[in-house]
Amino acid sequence: MAEGAIRPCRAEDCAQVVRLIRELAEFENLSEQVKISDKDFCEDGFGQVPFYKCLVAEAPPECCSGDGRTIVGYGLYFFTYSTWKGRNIYMEDLYVMPEFRGKGIGKKLMSAIAQVGLEQGCTQMRFAALDWNRSAIDFYLRQGAADLTAMEGWHFFRFEADAMQGLALGKPGSDRAPAHM
Amino acid sequence: MAEGAIRPCRAEDCAQVVRLIRELAEFENLSEQVKISDKDFCEDGFGQVPFYKCLVAEAPPECCSGDGRTIVGYGLYFFTYSTWKGRNIYMEDLYVMPEFRGKGIGKKLMSAIAQVGLEQGCTQMRFAALDWNRSAIDFYLRQGAADLTAMEGWHFFRFEADAMQGLALGKPGSDRAPAHM
Repeated sequence: MAEGAIRPCRAEDCAQVVRLIRELAEFENLSEQVKISDKDFCEDGFGQVPFYKCLVAEAPPECCSGDGRTIVGYGLYFFTYSTWKGRNIYMEDLYVMPEFRGKGIGKKLMSAIAQVGLEQGCTQMRFAALDWNRSAIDFYLRQGAADLTAMEGWHFFRFEADAMQGLALGKPGSDRAPAHM
Repeated sequence: MAEGAIRPCRAEDCAQVVRLIRELAEFENLSEQVKISDKDFCEDGFGQVPFYKCLVAEAPPECCSGDGRTIVGYGLYFFTYSTWKGRNIYMEDLYVMPEFRGKGIGKKLMSAIAQVGLEQGCTQMRFAALDWNRSAIDFYLRQGAADLTAMEGWHFFRFEADAMQGLALGKPGSDRAPAHM
């Protein structure tokens, strides 16, 4: 893996990438949240309207992982938009298998995502990190990232499917409107 | 505006929407960050590869705003991806002009975005809010949203263009790798 071959994910890599997705979620202590199937993941990335793009780090056959896997890391991204600054690239996941860590593979994946973003005219690259993952946060800050939650107070929110259905139906509630609507 | 007509934004609405984008940024005390031009905004949404989708709330001519504007609110969104749960819709902005607030227009825009998400097979609708905007956070929580920053510790990060260029060039640094790469 001295060369750290980074290439676009292909449909036939999906099962290996989903396995890495599960490993990352385990690392983040949130693996109970992983509901994705190999089939859905493949369809969402390689169907008529791709919902994400993915780069993988491939080890040459002679140094693949102990259990014979060849995809040893991945970086998953998509394009988003800032109404203040225009086109954005969003790095959703970045992960390298334990036995291949510390070789600069993660940074190569991140670098490749930044390159794609610049080629597409993106002015920002965004991502999220968990506040207890100090080594990751320190690494990102050293590369020049800004922590918008700490600096400006942005919080992430999510409606799950049930809440979305309630919203979509416009169900009435105790609707004191927020200050900006 | 009793009916609160919600419809997709058209290219000719872009200048009015950019004006609302600036109003929202002023409300958020972050207006110095708004760099978008009418032209770029229009090209990014209505060019060959649209980077966002937008819904607008249109007032009928007889009750347009004091200064003659007809677009009185907007909700801007795009599709993203969760490697844990699949397709996501992301609500980037939601805003209603002061004189049209408290009429349920914001909730109608949010409802319409949730409908689009469900139609596209999204299992989650995500967005961000500022921690001091308590009336907005309380409103979202009442609609069933979960605050992932408070619950799980997710922080937002951003690389600006300069940092992206450094990353893309793979510039060396003091690179102690994070625990997951």
